[in-house]
Amino acid sequence: MLTSIATVSLSGDLQEKLDAIAAAGFDGVEIFENDLLSFDGSPADVGKTIRDLGLKLVTFQPFRDFEGMPEPQRTRAFERAERKFDLMEELGTDLLMVCSNVSPHSLGGLDRAAKDLAELGDRAAKRGLRIAFEALSWGKHISDYRDSWEVVRRANHPNVGLVLDTFHIMARKVPLDAISSIPGDKIFLVQVADAPILEMDALSWSRHFRCFPGQGDFPLAEFMRNLAMTGYDGPLSLEIFNDQFRSSSTKNVAKDGLRSLIYLGDGIEGVKVGEKAKTLPPKAHAQEVAFVEFAVEEETADKLAKLFAGLGFEKRGSHKTKAVTWWKQGDINLVINCDKDGFAHSYNIVHGPSVCAVGLKVDDAKATLDRAQSLLAAPFSQAVGEGEIEMPAIRGVGGSLVYFLDDHSELSRIWDVEFEPARTEQSAKAKLRAVDHVSYSMQYEEMLTWLLYFTSIFDLGKMPTLDIPDPGGLVQSQVVQSDAVRLILNGSQSPHTQHSQFLNEFFGSGVQHLAFSSEDIFASVDYCAENGVEILPIPENYYDDIEARFGLEPELLDRLRARNILYDRDDEGEYYQAYTRTFANRFFFELVERRAYRGFGAANAPIRLASQTRMNRRSDAAK
Amino acid sequence: MLTSIATVSLSGDLQEKLDAIAAAGFDGVEIFENDLLSFDGSPADVGKTIRDLGLKLVTFQPFRDFEGMPEPQRTRAFERAERKFDLMEELGTDLLMVCSNVSPHSLGGLDRAAKDLAELGDRAAKRGLRIAFEALSWGKHISDYRDSWEVVRRANHPNVGLVLDTFHIMARKVPLDAISSIPGDKIFLVQVADAPILEMDALSWSRHFRCFPGQGDFPLAEFMRNLAMTGYDGPLSLEIFNDQFRSSSTKNVAKDGLRSLIYLGDGIEGVKVGEKAKTLPPKAHAQEVAFVEFAVEEETADKLAKLFAGLGFEKRGSHKTKAVTWWKQGDINLVINCDKDGFAHSYNIVHGPSVCAVGLKVDDAKATLDRAQSLLAAPFSQAVGEGEIEMPAIRGVGGSLVYFLDDHSELSRIWDVEFEPARTEQSAKAKLRAVDHVSYSMQYEEMLTWLLYFTSIFDLGKMPTLDIPDPGGLVQSQVVQSDAVRLILNGSQSPHTQHSQFLNEFFGSGVQHLAFSSEDIFASVDYCAENGVEILPIPENYYDDIEARFGLEPELLDRLRARNILYDRDDEGEYYQAYTRTFANRFFFELVERRAYRGFGAANAPIRLASQTRMNRRSDAAK
Repeated sequence: MLTSIATVSLSGDLQEKLDAIAAAGFDGVEIFENDLLSFDGSPADVGKTIRDLGLKLVTFQPFRDFEGMPEPQRTRAFERAERKFDLMEELGTDLLMVCSNVSPHSLGGLDRAAKDLAELGDRAAKRGLRIAFEALSWGKHISDYRDSWEVVRRANHPNVGLVLDTFHIMARKVPLDAISSIPGDKIFLVQVADAPILEMDALSWSRHFRCFPGQGDFPLAEFMRNLAMTGYDGPLSLEIFNDQFRSSSTKNVAKDGLRSLIYLGDGIEGVKVGEKAKTLPPKAHAQEVAFVEFAVEEETADKLAKLFAGLGFEKRGSHKTKAVTWWKQGDINLVINCDKDGFAHSYNIVHGPSVCAVGLKVDDAKATLDRAQSLLAAPFSQAVGEGEIEMPAIRGVGGSLVYFLDDHSELSRIWDVEFEPARTEQSAKAKLRAVDHVSYSMQYEEMLTWLLYFTSIFDLGKMPTLDIPDPGGLVQSQVVQSDAVRLILNGSQSPHTQHSQFLNEFFGSGVQHLAFSSEDIFASVDYCAENGVEILPIPENYYDDIEARFGLEPELLDRLRARNILYDRDDEGEYYQAYTRTFANRFFFELVERRAYRGFGAANAPIRLASQTRMNRRSDAAK
Repeated sequence: MLTSIATVSLSGDLQEKLDAIAAAGFDGVEIFENDLLSFDGSPADVGKTIRDLGLKLVTFQPFRDFEGMPEPQRTRAFERAERKFDLMEELGTDLLMVCSNVSPHSLGGLDRAAKDLAELGDRAAKRGLRIAFEALSWGKHISDYRDSWEVVRRANHPNVGLVLDTFHIMARKVPLDAISSIPGDKIFLVQVADAPILEMDALSWSRHFRCFPGQGDFPLAEFMRNLAMTGYDGPLSLEIFNDQFRSSSTKNVAKDGLRSLIYLGDGIEGVKVGEKAKTLPPKAHAQEVAFVEFAVEEETADKLAKLFAGLGFEKRGSHKTKAVTWWKQGDINLVINCDKDGFAHSYNIVHGPSVCAVGLKVDDAKATLDRAQSLLAAPFSQAVGEGEIEMPAIRGVGGSLVYFLDDHSELSRIWDVEFEPARTEQSAKAKLRAVDHVSYSMQYEEMLTWLLYFTSIFDLGKMPTLDIPDPGGLVQSQVVQSDAVRLILNGSQSPHTQHSQFLNEFFGSGVQHLAFSSEDIFASVDYCAENGVEILPIPENYYDDIEARFGLEPELLDRLRARNILYDRDDEGEYYQAYTRTFANRFFFELVERRAYRGFGAANAPIRLASQTRMNRRSDAAK
């Protein structure tokens, strides 16, 4: 199937859209009429531009309010169609997409609609053109693909075929199994869109909340399996109306679109998506966060090392040739990079003290890189010194890196090979054991990008999004996770949240916080306090409330209160959390103890955010 | 009725919220529990702060999942309540708001609920406290105020009363007439919220889209008339969950809230809203846009004067003592102010060339000022010279002014009194007749503010909002209008729209465009073209489409195309529009001819926006 996208899916003017679509690597494009109307160039010019960019013009759309009209509207509708045929000849496309009538004037009856389409097919055939008919989910008489297919079947015209649009099908929860019995050569176009499950009217949902396959909740794999059975081999085209996309980078959204189509075809038997389709390695199993690398300048490196020591980490080694140190506790590996060469240094110059890379342990690092590249992730590599091991990496959130490690290649020996050991025994002074989760702050418009990136490359599943109230507005939070790797993507539309202040300070998106799991949260916090790490203070009122809410024993309550530990409970278990103060105005650490609890303490987030806001103001006031 | 607001309605921390609520002039406040939990101060401190600010603490809320619990949850619920009673005693409030149970554990039955509430009432009575019971619209068993009232009635306890919440009542479209038969003294609290009519689940609708009375679509006046019949005289309290409010100025939102309550009580017989309640003069009838004043420096004044002349305006006079000129055509009065003293000059320093004031003709200018001030608009006045007339004015969008004129006071003579006539005959060279509409660009978060401002002071009605696609994102457009005055409020959440670029260039919200109605659009455009006014070019493709869409005669199409006039049609009539190029990177003018047409050519707006974007890029490139 050809990969294609409708111009309406992107921001910018028509030229920008076409350039971005070609640059992303799509095979084809649908021209959405409004983009043409507002464009200052003739249809012939547009057609030539499309061909010169190596794209196929898949269809011109939409042609509205056609079938089932009484006179005089019926005659007018055919006249309108003839004008659009003229336009299509100029553009150089043979397919007109007709969507089902929403006009209050329109009359019902499948035969009537079929007759109109057959007549339109006759007219189109005279010019060598074709008609594709779509059931809008809010069509007045035809709103179900089984009806639009019946109309096409009765029209019984070689130049009249069907459009399947996943949004319209799934918005009405129409069963998908009737698809497989439609002959593939009578399907002229397949439009794919995903969407979050929302309870709202279909028109608003469609116009504002569609998203790329894999970014929403629709059963698209089931659709693809049914489609595969039809033998369809035409265009697979994205038609997305999304407020975020309309205000995002044209190029990036186009690339996300193509990634979503490649991912949509992944693992569907009998389906090849794209002219250059190839089989992808399987999803990478994200086993654990193997390390986190911090980019700092020398002076800050000392402060950060002091904080790490206060958190119970021990210096485990120094890089043999670079100004890089390795810190360890339990299974957590932290790296402080203040070398004057290489990626970390460049990243630090732009963003200041920051997490510049996260290493993920996977089953096969090389295969993961291969899959990631097939899914349009940008690979990263830099010169490696003699005897050093090149670690596969891709660009991630805000240009930071995601490295891949595994157990079966030379990568498993990287710490031993590249580092001069400082100590050898295992340390777990503060009883911290592993990275529990990594939390990224990003522009609100980027959330769907990184959701698709992480869930398509890795075996990370997405959780329902949450709205977290910050004193300056709402923060939207999206978790993607496997058994042992948990990533949080946070975005906010308010410019006044702490989240947004981080983006300003940081000059972009990146890691805002890192949570370590503890075997014993009380011992961990005590260790930190004794070793000079300040814990974020939590108001007394909070403890009065959790006492009332959960009926906690006075002794436990006192222990929590004394240590500024937050508490939550769900049906499965308990959660304990404490936070460090913010380091260098940028990132902070969280200590958590999970007892069979599956969430992230969302109920406590407003308490934490309010406290951080208070602390930031105090430190601003002290400046 | 006391005016009150729940702390959850505002952004910021608890102290900021309380300060803003007192500063706005509310009589009381509801403490929303989460605001207390995250606050770093004891409940006793919070209570004292509230009393010191002169506010009454109306209620503490919400107490959730109480009634109808089986054991052991029932015993736990009473224990939780006792802890909240402790807290209330510290805070210094006697009323606990209990909302209906949403827990899957809860059991139904009005008698069971009544028994639980009566027992809670006994416990409350021992401490001199009271309970107010609310039906959440998504309550598991109780979701209708008629049921919650029946529970309260059967509880039959002096310390147990009812909460009426307009959101929960109206979200379920429960009839309002049963309210009038509830005894006023059994209603302990009335919470008011408005909301736009949206087809979505009640919980999301409630948590994100509530707004202040008058900003949405709910029948609140009908509610108030029913409420008045009960004899209720307790607090009228705003409880608003709104994403825009959460990211807006705490002080401004608080002020909007109080304005909305005053407006809600306006004209409802038997209702006094606020301790300092008084009767307002009636809504001002906005008869026409009497003048528009431009603030420019001298050099730009010449360019603007040239543009006015090109549009067919004639200089009608010069101010006797200030560097101010008066331009007229038909009933349109434009003023160019480049005086070095006064408001216009200050406004120009901040915003550059701009519309600094709009004059509205009303029935009674003084009464309008009185009403506006009662509705918390900020009056404006500056020194007037000897023999000059002081024109009543208030602050409006972005700090610009709205002046009031009328026919019956000395204001009717202002042009003759203050200006030296340049010519006396009437000019209508370009056949322009009146100001058709004034279009403001504002921060998205301000849209509800100015909607309420204009519709509460004047007899302007609001139209449904529209989403207009700009190449850089969506623009939301809200029209408020009377017969002859039409104002458009535009906001956008995307930073990349032209709208948003205007806000950046302009350093704030203001008038972005002004439309003049023409008696003959073709003659108007011809006059402009002959007199050096460039008209915004419209792409050829647009004309091909409207030909097909409307079946226009070739001759009419040629006339439109030759002049870059846009065309629209509705069931009632036709609309013609043409635009000037943007002046000084800021504002532009539109010429329109309305033939019984009621809209604003929304279908053409994307064409105009794309063309303006193209022009701006070209002029940026030429810089």
